[in-house]
Amino acid sequence: MAVTETNELAIIILAAGKGTRMKSALHKVLHPIAGRPMIEHLMASAAALNPSRTIVVTGDLREQVERALKGKADFAVQDRQLGTGHAVLQAREALSGHSGDVLILYGDVPFLRSATMQAMQRRLHGDDAPTAVVLGFRPDDTRTYGRIIAGDDGRIARMVEHKDATEEERACTLCNSGVMAVRGEALFALLDRVGNDNAQGEYYLPDIVNLAAADGQACAVVETDEASEVAGINSRAELAEAEAQWQDFRRAEAMADGVTLRAPQTVFFSWDTMLAEDVVVEPNVVFGPGVNVAPNAKIRAFSHLEGASVGEGCEVGPHARLRPGAVLEAGAKVGNFVEVKNSTLGAGAKANHLTYLGDATVGAGANIGAGTITCNYDGYFKHRTEIGERAFIGSNSSLIAPLRVGADAIVAAGSAVTRDVGDGELRLVRGEQLVKPGWADRFHDAMKKKQKEAK
Amino acid sequence: MAVTETNELAIIILAAGKGTRMKSALHKVLHPIAGRPMIEHLMASAAALNPSRTIVVTGDLREQVERALKGKADFAVQDRQLGTGHAVLQAREALSGHSGDVLILYGDVPFLRSATMQAMQRRLHGDDAPTAVVLGFRPDDTRTYGRIIAGDDGRIARMVEHKDATEEERACTLCNSGVMAVRGEALFALLDRVGNDNAQGEYYLPDIVNLAAADGQACAVVETDEASEVAGINSRAELAEAEAQWQDFRRAEAMADGVTLRAPQTVFFSWDTMLAEDVVVEPNVVFGPGVNVAPNAKIRAFSHLEGASVGEGCEVGPHARLRPGAVLEAGAKVGNFVEVKNSTLGAGAKANHLTYLGDATVGAGANIGAGTITCNYDGYFKHRTEIGERAFIGSNSSLIAPLRVGADAIVAAGSAVTRDVGDGELRLVRGEQLVKPGWADRFHDAMKKKQKEAK
Amino acid sequence: MAVTETNELAIIILAAGKGTRMKSALHKVLHPIAGRPMIEHLMASAAALNPSRTIVVTGDLREQVERALKGKADFAVQDRQLGTGHAVLQAREALSGHSGDVLILYGDVPFLRSATMQAMQRRLHGDDAPTAVVLGFRPDDTRTYGRIIAGDDGRIARMVEHKDATEEERACTLCNSGVMAVRGEALFALLDRVGNDNAQGEYYLPDIVNLAAADGQACAVVETDEASEVAGINSRAELAEAEAQWQDFRRAEAMADGVTLRAPQTVFFSWDTMLAEDVVVEPNVVFGPGVNVAPNAKIRAFSHLEGASVGEGCEVGPHARLRPGAVLEAGAKVGNFVEVKNSTLGAGAKANHLTYLGDATVGAGANIGAGTITCNYDGYFKHRTEIGERAFIGSNSSLIAPLRVGADAIVAAGSAVTRDVGDGELRLVRGEQLVKPGWADRFHDAMKKKQKEAK
Repeated sequence: MAVTETNELAIIILAAGKGTRMKSALHKVLHPIAGRPMIEHLMASAAALNPSRTIVVTGDLREQVERALKGKADFAVQDRQLGTGHAVLQAREALSGHSGDVLILYGDVPFLRSATMQAMQRRLHGDDAPTAVVLGFRPDDTRTYGRIIAGDDGRIARMVEHKDATEEERACTLCNSGVMAVRGEALFALLDRVGNDNAQGEYYLPDIVNLAAADGQACAVVETDEASEVAGINSRAELAEAEAQWQDFRRAEAMADGVTLRAPQTVFFSWDTMLAEDVVVEPNVVFGPGVNVAPNAKIRAFSHLEGASVGEGCEVGPHARLRPGAVLEAGAKVGNFVEVKNSTLGAGAKANHLTYLGDATVGAGANIGAGTITCNYDGYFKHRTEIGERAFIGSNSSLIAPLRVGADAIVAAGSAVTRDVGDGELRLVRGEQLVKPGWADRFHDAMKKKQKEAK
Repeated sequence: MAVTETNELAIIILAAGKGTRMKSALHKVLHPIAGRPMIEHLMASAAALNPSRTIVVTGDLREQVERALKGKADFAVQDRQLGTGHAVLQAREALSGHSGDVLILYGDVPFLRSATMQAMQRRLHGDDAPTAVVLGFRPDDTRTYGRIIAGDDGRIARMVEHKDATEEERACTLCNSGVMAVRGEALFALLDRVGNDNAQGEYYLPDIVNLAAADGQACAVVETDEASEVAGINSRAELAEAEAQWQDFRRAEAMADGVTLRAPQTVFFSWDTMLAEDVVVEPNVVFGPGVNVAPNAKIRAFSHLEGASVGEGCEVGPHARLRPGAVLEAGAKVGNFVEVKNSTLGAGAKANHLTYLGDATVGAGANIGAGTITCNYDGYFKHRTEIGERAFIGSNSSLIAPLRVGADAIVAAGSAVTRDVGDGELRLVRGEQLVKPGWADRFHDAMKKKQKEAK
Repeated sequence: MAVTETNELAIIILAAGKGTRMKSALHKVLHPIAGRPMIEHLMASAAALNPSRTIVVTGDLREQVERALKGKADFAVQDRQLGTGHAVLQAREALSGHSGDVLILYGDVPFLRSATMQAMQRRLHGDDAPTAVVLGFRPDDTRTYGRIIAGDDGRIARMVEHKDATEEERACTLCNSGVMAVRGEALFALLDRVGNDNAQGEYYLPDIVNLAAADGQACAVVETDEASEVAGINSRAELAEAEAQWQDFRRAEAMADGVTLRAPQTVFFSWDTMLAEDVVVEPNVVFGPGVNVAPNAKIRAFSHLEGASVGEGCEVGPHARLRPGAVLEAGAKVGNFVEVKNSTLGAGAKANHLTYLGDATVGAGANIGAGTITCNYDGYFKHRTEIGERAFIGSNSSLIAPLRVGADAIVAAGSAVTRDVGDGELRLVRGEQLVKPGWADRFHDAMKKKQKEAK
């Protein structure tokens, strides 16, 4: 049965525990994967279900979480951590007036797929109209997981914690991921009835399924084949594994899209990296957020890009750094030990060696010599440098912004330029060539003597 | 039985299909592995058999293939892709006059070993004088492969496509790689008889084996243990796997030869990289084509070398880039953020920091200060810089070529040098030291005020 | 039974064979793992047992080994390599006067754990007072290893070389690692009785166990579960595997301690690297020896650090190099293509782009512009640069040491500064701005003409 428009959906994401095993002053759910806080991966997947509201239940370090997600979610506070059932209860006020479905997710289980969430919501509106749908999975190692005791039709007879399970129940390999879709009208009434009469003294969310079942209401399980999508991240090692899993997926996707990755394991994508067909990425390249690379561009080894747009047929690196605001138009070239920040290189422009371009506009076909530095900062303000088309900036020049160098102009090597250079002009800033014949020979003699004395 | 000199060999390499799964404007067989087009790996292995001619059958993007392989092979054109049998037929004219053996290879199966090709040719001259020899292999997953139904003596009873195979035939795990050696006198006559009465409407090369068998001619199978040598490359993912396989092989070989690879997985070789004994390669090093490293040299982390010759005991990197024409004589040192192109560093010369050496000759024992730039390009022509033995180039100097700096000469730091410096001379190019006491303090005050106003 | 203080311990480490399979002019035991000679890893583990002396038995390339370990061990020489028993015998003189326990280790088996050594020494003082304790292990592939035939109580009946073993003995999977603890008073008397009547004509150390057993003395086996700790290193490939094993262990440890490694496989530690909680290490970072990173610091991609101290909240890289003596105080920042050597950056100081800081002291809050070079070397001596608090060094400046730049001082971009700059002063060193209107246009015309002629 299709989910109709009247089945308005609310998402609750539990994110109260900061995760002590992370050993971090940063809340667990804010640790990034592929450059994005893990909880935002989850929220992006949930967004595909078009939820009417998203409530994040915070607790530890709640200011951090609220600041990071401001404007992207509403918040409910769980002051004391008294269990998952108690956590969901805290969202009651934030959900007042909501009568549709509720999907309960976990901020530290970030890879749950949209398709799985959708399957759960669909199941909630199946013919048997279950009160709750639980997401089950079959891990390699079932120890520690609660079990879902269900019939072949997916109807749940009972949820049981691992430590309370009988031998027979433990033989069941269908485990509870904790993820649940519940009918909004039933959720809080059931939660009110959950007790904490257990070893931990906690209010467990799965108990609502047992309560509903005892009332004769149907509850159902949806099973995922991908145990990885319900894997929780509780330590830096698990964070690294999640990153690796994400990267592997993304690398395969890039290659399928016609990108050459000579050594896929050494290329690191950001969550939003966009690479076109016939882009070639050499080994050891790191993409930070906000990078877009057009067809036939080549990103060479040891390059680091973030917030950059690389045009068709451009060549970047090896050993290049593109920072936010770097825009390379078609065929531009940025070579080794070159940093480009908040600057545009026109079509075919080149900055091949040991250069810093900051807050600059470089015209098409211009050539920026080795060692050129745009002096864009005076300690207080940033200033722009504009370089005309086909201009030639001699090596080791200092372009002291604000500055305009005209089209076809030439700046002589080694010049520190403070005044604008007109179109077709030569600017030369250089001291006199002083020669001291024999001076070096005398210096060598004196120094060698001094070296001997020093011994 | 040895292959006698009269058994002249022709190679046919099928390379008509560009490979749509590559999603590339570059023909599949030209995608590089270890810096060399994949088809050239195959041609290099085939060269060990000393073929009298090599015919590459082109089709899609034939200009690309012909341009890349110009002078290394002859070409035949398959205008329409009507099957492997049809493809081989196109080589008939190019092979006119050839009466010896024909070995049929595939441009996208690049790792077939010389030894395997030789075994096939030897088998073609076995006692039973087979008309054709097919290369068989036993993949982990036999699905999709045609089967070779052969006796224990290797004599082929029948070739059968997977989809036409009976249950019993499918139980046979000996699969057809497509690689075939055929007696030249029989090849085209058999191909003329191959029909296209099949689901795809294609002319299949393996049919010649069935035709020969029906004529009572012997056909034989040679089996390879290395399924990887007959693996075809049809996607960027398979290309990356082939690269990884090649690199792993090469890394193991280098270590066996006495090279230290601290982290083998992070070192990328080119097809022609040569490293001597007791070379140490730190993590994250990329070798482009044409690199030769002498004993006891150390290539440090994050270095990128191509077309470079590194002498005995040299140290390169970390973060160094050697480009084509870089020659480091014994004990020379190239340090971090240094680029060397088309330049020679004499024995013991040093360029340790943030330097660009292009089109330069640096004498033995010379010291190139940090930030030195050879200004070798005037926008139109390249010019050379010659630096004498034991010369000392002060930091941040610009050497404006053409330029000669003499032996034992000194260039003062920060100089932009345009005229030759004699042996033992000091060259100093520098403006006056202007002092403005209190200026900075007043500037700070003014700017802080301006900053406040800007808020 | 506890090891009492009277059980003085001597360590003998066999390191005579240089290891021909290494194909190296460097002795095998000196090849580094994680930046430290492999034998020193072993010595560090043995140091936990507080040995009264450590004797290294040298032979091939003994000068290398003795130089490397000078002051850390005593040495005995095995001139000819006549077997392990013969090797241990050479330590007799160096051990004269020693009556306690003797632990016999191997310089090319570097990962033996302290705990295992301690367990062996404890066993040597068990109730049955064994004369010798042998370390046994159960490899996946038992071929080539000698067997330990022992009862369930760990008492050894007999040691047997693999090639001399019966079928029944070969079925025993408990293998001899070669590592042995022996009561000092018995060791040399037993060794004197060992013969060389075997195929290799060598004196085998394990024979002392058989001799002792024949005398009715108890000998015991201690078994390790970790086959990897007794793995010997005989080739560069095994060296690389040992490095990988060490790195994996260290990476896991760092993550457990609260360090984020975005891509653990790409981060390389040194044996003594120290990273605090909430340090973030991006992909592709290499730590050389002597690095210490304080909490909340971020080490960005492609950075190389050695001998450096990174303060709280600092940011390093991407593409930064910190060399020995680099000290970054809290919040300092070292950016791309920047090298820092023997220099201190005060709190919040920044050197963000293309800079060389050598032998410098940079005051808190100072800003070092892009392309700044400290000219610290005159070809003979190094000199220091002192930069005051909040000073602003304009881009592309050359600071010619010895030099002092005062607090709040400004150096104008492109200046080569030779004289001290006072507090709050501006120093400006720059040539006149020469303009040649139209010159560039004429130059372009002339050069284009020349280019045409050159064709």
